[in-house]
This record gives sequence, structure tokens and C-alpha cells, in this order.
Amino acid sequence: MAGRTSTPGQTVSRRLLAVLDVFDVAHPALTLTEVAARSGLPVSTARRLITELRNWGGLERLDDGRYRIGIRLWTIGTLAPQQRGLREAALPYMHDLFQATQENIQLTVLEGTQALCIEKISSNKAVPTQTQIGGRLPLHATGVGKALLAFSGKELLGSLAAAGLTRMTPHTITQPGRLAAALAEVRKSGVAYSYEEMTLGAASVAAPILGLDGGVRAALGIVAHSRSAVDRLAPAVRTAALGIARWAG
Amino acid sequence: MAGRTSTPGQTVSRRLLAVLDVFDVAHPALTLTEVAARSGLPVSTARRLITELRNWGGLERLDDGRYRIGIRLWTIGTLAPQQRGLREAALPYMHDLFQATQENIQLTVLEGTQALCIEKISSNKAVPTQTQIGGRLPLHATGVGKALLAFSGKELLGSLAAAGLTRMTPHTITQPGRLAAALAEVRKSGVAYSYEEMTLGAASVAAPILGLDGGVRAALGIVAHSRSAVDRLAPAVRTAALGIARWAG
Repeated sequence: MAGRTSTPGQTVSRRLLAVLDVFDVAHPALTLTEVAARSGLPVSTARRLITELRNWGGLERLDDGRYRIGIRLWTIGTLAPQQRGLREAALPYMHDLFQATQENIQLTVLEGTQALCIEKISSNKAVPTQTQIGGRLPLHATGVGKALLAFSGKELLGSLAAAGLTRMTPHTITQPGRLAAALAEVRKSGVAYSYEEMTLGAASVAAPILGLDGGVRAALGIVAHSRSAVDRLAPAVRTAALGIARWAG
Repeated sequence: MAGRTSTPGQTVSRRLLAVLDVFDVAHPALTLTEVAARSGLPVSTARRLITELRNWGGLERLDDGRYRIGIRLWTIGTLAPQQRGLREAALPYMHDLFQATQENIQLTVLEGTQALCIEKISSNKAVPTQTQIGGRLPLHATGVGKALLAFSGKELLGSLAAAGLTRMTPHTITQPGRLAAALAEVRKSGVAYSYEEMTLGAASVAAPILGLDGGVRAALGIVAHSRSAVDRLAPAVRTAALGIARWAG
């Protein structure tokens, strides 16, 4: 077998995890052929690993033959610390904000060089967003992302700038110097804005949830239709974020 | 190595998954020695598999040297179908119920022969329960469990009876015949009760969330202090469950 090393156990582990890695928010259900193609594994290997994962409960087979993540992995995932204390502290505040605004409410944490959405509340009346629980957002183009970035170390901004700030809309800040200035403003005011920088027709405002050590644990944000809407909602989102930080200890 | 078969790949996969399996609600953080002991693996094997999982992001190391589930597994787990559509449909109703009652609100699905809690809302004022998201409850002793059991096939009751109905309190129904009669009552009324059958000093009421095919998808429950409280709340929980079923399609 090509690529097989002298420690076959490691290789098998990596292959098994590679099968899990092919599933994401954009690809929640895949055929065997798709799993093999996306993981770079031979079909026979992918089939065997899928069977292992199905027997364990980590994958389920749909009636149309596709596979998706099973409840066993969900159950294990609930043990991750990010989701437990923080989310439970945040949910009551998020529902208060939702009741007061009827807009999209998002709770995100820093995950690598992106913002990971760990909770959201929305309704049919709110501005449509593609953000789902478990989905990722760019740090430089979103309110929650800027709130996380502003209170993280300078190295993170450096590595984002080195990788290039992707232009999402004509309003996205793509110059590192301009972004650094915007982040200094966020640190001063305690709130971060995005005016159509991620999606045309949508604006967002967010506030950091800081830990006792001063580090940023999460960011709470609202996505609404207009700049004037999010400007008006800034005090509410900041108040809620401070409440969550106090409650989460 | 003892127990090694002629298909080492399968064995490695099973060992890797066995490492994940040792973590649960009661054991969210474990030392290397504990992981080895609980999985039945040699310490050297457990160490190697933990390293693989850490490199991937599935496990994290705490400052005290213990390991816990990482955000990578949480992210993948959010793709499980049980948590996506159903939970999003249910959350607004659960918050309405919570606002109206200030009691524990639980959403559960059938998982094997137990009820798995996939969402809960609670407060300091509510009666204390040990139920956590990702935690499991016995079917025969809880409101949500009886609601799931009453609308499942007869085989499930049979296998529960064969395994024995564990006595949780002096009020637990442990005779299969009495349980079957109680379940018939649940099917008639559309609500299921538990009066101190799970925990002394706590009562619960629950209603099934049925799918378009008539099968039970989930159960919505309230845990409160007294029998009179849950009797009064039965119409509210049933109404919310019907609303969720309609919304979830």
C-alpha cells in the first residue's frame, strides 16, 4: 500500500479520522464514492472504515445510500468544554436578546484562524445568514470575528495578514493596516462592527466575552439588515456579553 | 499483542474509538492511566492513540495533565441529524415553556434502550436534576422515557423487561405488566408522568414529538417539584410538543 509507514497503527488512525473530516456543514451527507474522493482514500479502504464507524455509531446510513454523522459522535462532542459551561451561561442572555430584537444572535469562539459558531438563535423574520452551529466565519470580515481578533495576541493578526485578507464584498477590509486600526477602535469601545463586509445587505455588531485572565473566551453578535439597526443594538449586545462573562465566571 | 487479529487495521480502529468511549458525562476529564484502565488498553497503546487524537484536535490536554474531548469532535458532532433540525425547531418552544414555568425543560431522543438528552433549559430556581445535555435517562422511570417508550414498538418494552426494570426509588414501576398498562394510558392521553419514580422530590411530565410517519422522533418534558405542579403543566407541554412536531415537519 502506497504511503504506508512502518507504524501501520498510526496510518490507520489517521485514515479513520480522515473519513470523519470529510463531513462538514456544506457536506453533511456523502456517498461512499464521495467519502473516498474527499479523503483521498481508495474506495475499498473507505468502505472498510465506514463500516467500522457505522458499527460504532459514529456514522449512519441514509435510505438513499449516503452516510452522515451519527448520534454517538454528537454525544461525545457535547463533552467539549467550549460547549458546556459557556453555552449554558450564554443561552438565557441570547434568548433575551432575541426576544428584544428578533434578529440573528450568534455565539462564537476562536478556532484556529476562524470564528466557530457554537450557538445561534434565529427566526424566519431575521435577515438570512448562512451561519450554522458548527460553521466557521472569517475573523476580518465579521463583527464576532473582529471582537475575537481584537482581544487576541498580535501574532494572530500577523498570520491572517500573511495569508491574505480575503475580499468577501467590496466593503471588506483587506489592508492589514486598516484592519489593525479598526481593531484598536474595538478595544476602546468594546464592540465590533461589520457593515456589509461579509455579505451585502447584512450588518453585524458583536462584543467579546472575556475571561477572568483578560483573555477572550468567545464573542456574542447580532446580524441585522442595516447599519442603523446594528448601531442601535450595540449597547444591548455589549450588556449581554458582560452578563455572560460574569455568569460564566 | 494479545487479542490482535489478522486484520490489524480493524483492531486499531476499534482501539481508537475505545479511547473516545471512555469519556462521558460522569468522566469528562481523565488521566492517561484512567484512559488505559477504562478502555482496557495497555498504557503505551493508550498514550499513542491519545497523541493521534490530540494532533487531530479530538482530545485536549488540561494543565493538570488530564485529557478531555476537544472542539473538533464537537464540531463534527453538530452534523448529526438529531441535533440539527429537531433542536432548532424545538428551542423556541422550550424557551416559551421555560419563561412560563421557570422549571427544567428537556428534549430527549431514543438512543438504544435509554433516553438521550439533546437539549435542556434550566435555572437555579428549578428543582435540581442531574440530567445534562448528552446524558442518558432510563425509559421506564422518567416522563420523557415513558413518552418515547409508549410510541415505540412492543419489542423495546420486551427487551427492557427482559433486562429487568431497575428500581430507582420506592415509586419506580418495576413490574412489566404495570408498566405496559401505564404506557397504554400514555398513548390514550398523549402525556406521560413520573411521580418520584426517578428521584425522590421530583416529578415530571412529557409528551411525544411524532413524525409524519407516526413514529416518535423525540419527547419534550418538564421536571418540577411536585405532582400537582406537573399535573398543571401537562397541557402546556403537550401543546409545545405538538407545535414542535408541526414545525419540524
